[in-house]
Parts: sequence; C-alpha cells; structure tokens
Amino acid sequence: MKLLKSHKSFAGRTEFWNHASRFTKTEMKFATFIPEGKIAGALIWLSGLTCTEENFITKAGAQKYLAAKNLMVICPDTSPRGLNLPGEHDSYDFGSGASFYFDATVNGYADHYQMSSYVNVEIYDILKNEFKIEKISLFGHSMGGHGALVIGLNNPGKYASLSAFSPIVNPSGVPWGVKALNGYFGQDKSLWKRNDACELLKAGKTHPREILISQGTKDEFLEVHLLTENFVREAKLNNQKANVQYCEGYDHSYYFIATFIEAHINHHSFHLTGN
Amino acid sequence: MKLLKSHKSFAGRTEFWNHASRFTKTEMKFATFIPEGKIAGALIWLSGLTCTEENFITKAGAQKYLAAKNLMVICPDTSPRGLNLPGEHDSYDFGSGASFYFDATVNGYADHYQMSSYVNVEIYDILKNEFKIEKISLFGHSMGGHGALVIGLNNPGKYASLSAFSPIVNPSGVPWGVKALNGYFGQDKSLWKRNDACELLKAGKTHPREILISQGTKDEFLEVHLLTENFVREAKLNNQKANVQYCEGYDHSYYFIATFIEAHINHHSFHLTGN
Repeated sequence: MKLLKSHKSFAGRTEFWNHASRFTKTEMKFATFIPEGKIAGALIWLSGLTCTEENFITKAGAQKYLAAKNLMVICPDTSPRGLNLPGEHDSYDFGSGASFYFDATVNGYADHYQMSSYVNVEIYDILKNEFKIEKISLFGHSMGGHGALVIGLNNPGKYASLSAFSPIVNPSGVPWGVKALNGYFGQDKSLWKRNDACELLKAGKTHPREILISQGTKDEFLEVHLLTENFVREAKLNNQKANVQYCEGYDHSYYFIATFIEAHINHHSFHLTGN
Repeated sequence: MKLLKSHKSFAGRTEFWNHASRFTKTEMKFATFIPEGKIAGALIWLSGLTCTEENFITKAGAQKYLAAKNLMVICPDTSPRGLNLPGEHDSYDFGSGASFYFDATVNGYADHYQMSSYVNVEIYDILKNEFKIEKISLFGHSMGGHGALVIGLNNPGKYASLSAFSPIVNPSGVPWGVKALNGYFGQDKSLWKRNDACELLKAGKTHPREILISQGTKDEFLEVHLLTENFVREAKLNNQKANVQYCEGYDHSYYFIATFIEAHINHHSFHLTGN
C-alpha cells in the first residue's frame, strides 16, 4: 500500500493510495478520508458507471460530516485498470469503469474482474488490518448502490449498515444489468440471482438494519435502469426494513448526492457508533 | 444566453450556460448556483490556473451555504476557448486556462483576452440585467484570487466585498506573474502596476470593506508564487483592512477551499445583506 497524495481537509486528511490486489491481479487505486484522532468506524463507498476512486471524494462534500462523526471512508476504483480484455474498453457500461462489483466467471474476465471479493474481502481486510477499524458499513451510487445492496445482503454480518443513492436494484430486468450479468456470468441464471438485490430479497436474504435509499424523482435513469419500486415491493414482502426516500426534483448526479450525503453519513454513524 | 444543463442541488439549482461574449469575441461558458426564492445578492468566483467554469461548482461544496444565505454564485471560465493564438496552448500558466483576468494589449491576445472587462463589465451586467441582482461581491482562488483583488481594488464601488483563497498578490515579482504580465502586456510597466494587487495598494487603491484571505501554510506555491506576506505588509502601510488567515497544514487544493468556503460565504453575506 503506497500513499500517492495527501491533502488536509476539514479535520482530517483526504488521501489517494495504490496497492497490488490479489483478487484483480492488477494495481488498484483507492481514496480515503481519515479524520484526526480516534476513528469510530469506516464506510466503504462504491461509485457508479465511468467513475474512478476520485469522483466521490472530490464531489460529494462528505469530509465535513465524516470528520464530525469521526468516521473514515474508503472509495475503491470501479474496475481493474491497465488490462486489455476482449471488449473491455468498448462501452461505458461494461468492462473498465463498469465492473458492477461482480466476481466474473466468464473466461478472461474471471481472471481479473473479481470485484465483489476485492471489496468484500480485500478492501474490508485493509480496513481491519491496516487501518485498525472494527466496524464497517457500505454504501454507493447507481451501479455502486447495486454493489452495496448485493454485497451487503449476501454478507449481512460484516456490515453495520447499508445505504444507496439511486441504486440499480433489480439488474436482471434492465438493460444495464442484463448486459453486465450476461457479460460477466454468461447465461448461468443462478449467478444472476445471487447478484441482484431484489432476487436476494426474494430468496430470503435480508440485512438486520433498516436500509436507507435516496432516489431523485427527476433521475434520467429511474424508469429504465433503476426500478426503485421493485425494491420497495420486495423489501415489504420479505421483511427487509427499508427507508426509501424519493427526493422531489433531483437527478442522478453528484449534485444530488452532495445534497443528501449528510443524511446518509448520519444513518451509518448511528448504526456504527450509536451516535 | 443558453442554458446547457440544470441540476437541482440543495435548495436551488446548479446550472451551466454559454453565451457569445462581446469582449472575448468567442463563445464563453459559465456555471451558476441559484437559490430558490428571492436572491439576496451574488458572488462572482474566479478560478485558478487550468480550471474551467466547472471546478468550483463541482468541488467547493458551496451550494449548501449559498442556499442558506439566499446568495447566487456565477463562475466564469478562466480564458477564451476555441482560438489558436501564438503560444496559447503551449503551457499551463499562459494562454488557455490562464488569462490572469487581464485585458491584454499584446497583438493577437488583445483581440480576445479581454478577461478583466469580461468579468467586471459583461458578467457583472449579466448579473444585473439577466438575473436582476442588486449587490455583487467578488472572490477567487490563486490566479482567480489575484483577479478578484485586482478587479476589486480597481473598482471598489462595484463590489460589496472581496475575498481570496491562496491568491497571487504580487505578480510583478514572481515567475507565474512575470510570465503572464510580459505575455499579455509586454514591457509596459505602468500596465503591470495596474494589474498587481500589492502595487495597487501602494498607489493608494483600497476597498472600503475588510478583505478576507485564507492561505494554507503547506501550500506548495506559497514561497515562490503567492507571497501573501507582501499583501499583509502593503495593506498595513496603505490602510486597507485585511483579515489574512493562515490555515495550518492546508495546501493549494480544492480540499482546502471546501474546508473554508463557509467562512468566505458568510463574510460576503454579511457585507451583501447584513446577515
């Protein structure tokens, strides 16, 4: 783990790191904000399509609220980099910048696109072992909101709380999701089900804490790719507590995230620290 | 004036515009944040080297505090675009992205790089006429902090208040400044003096309100390009009220700006509205 850049910001430091990943078998980058003094817990943030480790840490305005709650955040990149797999760089919604946080099984991608394990094991262990964090929560945006829900529902004991902005909640039924599921898993529908938040709820997978979701009503992707109401329905039917907030007039951008980031940090702080 | 993009953010909208400028004779872009309801006043933000109209509005986290004070902000681009003047794109500190907010007199640049007038007349008049704003303040970062101080000291009656992050306060004596002054004005030293904040103070130009300056102590450009202490000295000698805050451990980045943006907005709000 190598520190690339370090900037004092609010009462803490915004930093950029790289390391050799044992899951992606590539060099991976991540960003962190680390508050001064004792760290009460950590959030893992998963970004959306086309993002890198930089978007959240520069645009969301989270540092002030993290510092106030003594929480750190770690923001992994959204895919391996520096490879040249078949079709990897041909579209914005598959391959580089678009891992969907899956552990791919398709030839070629299976060797490197192990992003579920990268987040849920490698980043998780870095927080435990390198940063000495005891309690960890998970959240994200869009493709990263999907990643947070899927990883969190599959591993409820590891994460104190979950939340998402504008998540893809039911990828098996939408164009972004079908393309990614097919591209990373082929036609094995049992794998599709284990990587779809609504399908996980149907299969009885739940998280013990209320899941917070913020969704803009003017989100340009809501109708075609996000399908928030499917999550509302499956949560109700399958006893998952969920607080789904429709935010009138907001879109899919980081301007929306910045507006509601304080509420999400407070949600996680409450579950991480009781405060 | 054409609206390109509009995003609801906090209690207002973050927007991107273009228009045909009569001073630069090019299409110019700017970003705004406009709070809901009645607008109490406006801030003009001038960005630093290599920036565009986007940097401040995406990275500074100003919207929350602007909305709370019912203030709008307008962020012009840092130079004309789409030209191909001699040497315009050869370096990061001259030409495109690096106008220094001067009204150039050198052949070629004089036809388009009229950025002082673009800000002080054209953007100012857009605020008055298109947005119906009565009171206007001026602030900026680095090259834009220099622009805010120079335009503000030359036009004290037009701006309710001035502030700057990490400004270049004495360009005539530093490498960035000498290159730009020479490139835009040639060897006419009388023009250099009218475009240098410390020289303006020496010539008796002051602003009636206290000028707020925030300067990180770990700023990588402080010793060579910024020379904050020259401003402190000339302000004292020439009866300019100044509140120069050295911020321990902070650097030149937007992470620093985001940390102290609330204080700057409160400074301007007080002078714009008494609130």
